[in-house]
Amino acid sequence: MAWEVGPEEVEAIALGAGILGTGGGGNPYLGKLHLLQELRDGRRVRMIDPAEVRDDAVLIAVSGMGAPTVTLEKLAWGREFYEAFRALERHTGTQAEAVVCGEVGGANSMSPLLLAVQTGLPCVDADPMGRAFPELQMDTFSIYGVNNSPAALCDDKGNIVVLDKALTPRWAETLFRAATIAMGGHAGLAMPYLTGEQMKRTAIWGTMTLALRLGQAVFEARRRREPPEQAVLAVAGGLVLFRGKIVDVERRTMGGFARGRLTMQGLGPDGGRTMTIDFQNENLIARSGDEILATVPDLICILDEETAEPITTEVLRYGLRVVVLGLPADAKLCTEQALKVVGPGAFGYDLRYRPLRV
Amino acid sequence: MAWEVGPEEVEAIALGAGILGTGGGGNPYLGKLHLLQELRDGRRVRMIDPAEVRDDAVLIAVSGMGAPTVTLEKLAWGREFYEAFRALERHTGTQAEAVVCGEVGGANSMSPLLLAVQTGLPCVDADPMGRAFPELQMDTFSIYGVNNSPAALCDDKGNIVVLDKALTPRWAETLFRAATIAMGGHAGLAMPYLTGEQMKRTAIWGTMTLALRLGQAVFEARRRREPPEQAVLAVAGGLVLFRGKIVDVERRTMGGFARGRLTMQGLGPDGGRTMTIDFQNENLIARSGDEILATVPDLICILDEETAEPITTEVLRYGLRVVVLGLPADAKLCTEQALKVVGPGAFGYDLRYRPLRV
Repeated sequence: MAWEVGPEEVEAIALGAGILGTGGGGNPYLGKLHLLQELRDGRRVRMIDPAEVRDDAVLIAVSGMGAPTVTLEKLAWGREFYEAFRALERHTGTQAEAVVCGEVGGANSMSPLLLAVQTGLPCVDADPMGRAFPELQMDTFSIYGVNNSPAALCDDKGNIVVLDKALTPRWAETLFRAATIAMGGHAGLAMPYLTGEQMKRTAIWGTMTLALRLGQAVFEARRRREPPEQAVLAVAGGLVLFRGKIVDVERRTMGGFARGRLTMQGLGPDGGRTMTIDFQNENLIARSGDEILATVPDLICILDEETAEPITTEVLRYGLRVVVLGLPADAKLCTEQALKVVGPGAFGYDLRYRPLRV
Repeated sequence: MAWEVGPEEVEAIALGAGILGTGGGGNPYLGKLHLLQELRDGRRVRMIDPAEVRDDAVLIAVSGMGAPTVTLEKLAWGREFYEAFRALERHTGTQAEAVVCGEVGGANSMSPLLLAVQTGLPCVDADPMGRAFPELQMDTFSIYGVNNSPAALCDDKGNIVVLDKALTPRWAETLFRAATIAMGGHAGLAMPYLTGEQMKRTAIWGTMTLALRLGQAVFEARRRREPPEQAVLAVAGGLVLFRGKIVDVERRTMGGFARGRLTMQGLGPDGGRTMTIDFQNENLIARSGDEILATVPDLICILDEETAEPITTEVLRYGLRVVVLGLPADAKLCTEQALKVVGPGAFGYDLRYRPLRV
């Protein structure tokens, strides 16, 4: 079902997408400001259902590439998605009929909306993650056979690099990661270039709607003074993994990623327990002592205890009181084929994925 | 004047280009083998004079990018120039009418010849250096206003990256250096894409002929048992800077370059003196004690004392007996505009360029 994105929807999507970002995908705040400015004169984004897209339609997905920590100091330009998108159109000699979200989690929920306003194209209600992941090959487009190349990358100054041919998804990641780092750590990415048929077969449907509903549910719970994390669980499924206070954060920007580990001390029902969470842009593994409570691809979401405002990796700090939720990953991320790319092993952990016990 | 390149010419060009490489540009040996194989069945490269090229002709220059040290262990594919060239044609939606040499010094003298055989196109007798330089922006095309982008880079496996837009020549260097390093340290480069008019105005003319004549002169001197370095000076001008033995080599592959310093002890007329040469792929500064004997952009060429075989940076080693020549740079490299990009200051030296006292 098609719907319209105006300023109210943007606020809700930004919040919901922040939760789905599982710590990464960047903070949607700046992207939201860019977008709200574009929508001020009454313009709206038309969100269309994947089923509405013709099989032979040409689509281009966009997202940001880089370390979220960088975007705190090096502000986005607001045109990098547009320029990358147009460069890919020029390179392929075609014109896209709609924009797809390359990663619904975090700031990347805002990028396709911004591009949709700038181009006047509709946005497809789908993405290839249903969350955020740190590396390019970690999406259902590439897992289920959509070629990563051609693709285009544009920095905040207007430099543009096109990936004409990547032998494997891993090579796409390696080459564009190097370019992103050379560009200063963050850039706008147009990837992949795909048909309607490919999108319908490989994407996770309805994730922009999911972000919207999550945001709306949290706003509603705040207004009614009900526990907002329960509103999240009512929409997305899942469970509370932990309640506590952040007591330590190790964080480094390394190889173009924000990597590190977080330690929390339990409060309330979790008093006396501790939890650690490892992250690479996104939260990867949640442990309490020797017990593994959740692993990728399931979503490990750190929210402010009072407001359920998502706390992204780059703003984690001592003293924050948080509630940690585990939300189940979409089925397309949990096949054997997908777990090779987005399961714990893909991040270097000798752990088997076990779905959340909801 | 047009001439043909067959196996004999290839041998002479490879030797002459090795001398013009001033230590860098890579050892032409492997490229020569690739090329001789392509020429075995009687095929020839047609070398055309710059004046023969129409003003509105489309041309593409090719060269290798990376650290010469890498090419000793990671052998070239032989198709990387062809694939980069074709990618740039596809990206621009045009077809080139001739191939231009992107750097006559060293292995890069072989790349355009190989591409010319593979495509059946003529090669223009010109290049933008008359020697070799380590960085992309250091050429007369870019110094005199030819845009570095679009350009294409292909590695030995077939990955292809296109530079769609670089804001400055320095950005072209930064972005493609990062890609080259990610590709393993060496790749085939198609850059720039230019018109006949631009080439005629900015290139150094006749440098493939210069390489040929240098090689032929050395072969002839060897046959007559005459001092081969004198044959080099008779063709290229210049003077003997030093005769001696290599006693120390500091060399690191850093940031995608072979960097270091070489020390020699004098022999014969230079007995009792020492000379040091700093290099970044190419030889940059030659000193004896506090005296500066030669600096970029003049050519500092280290040749085997007996045979005048050029000794490239990656094979410098203790004990080699060498003669060091200083050859004057082309006038296009010595303008104020050019010295900002290829003079000692561009390499971080607080030195003023003074032309060789020949």
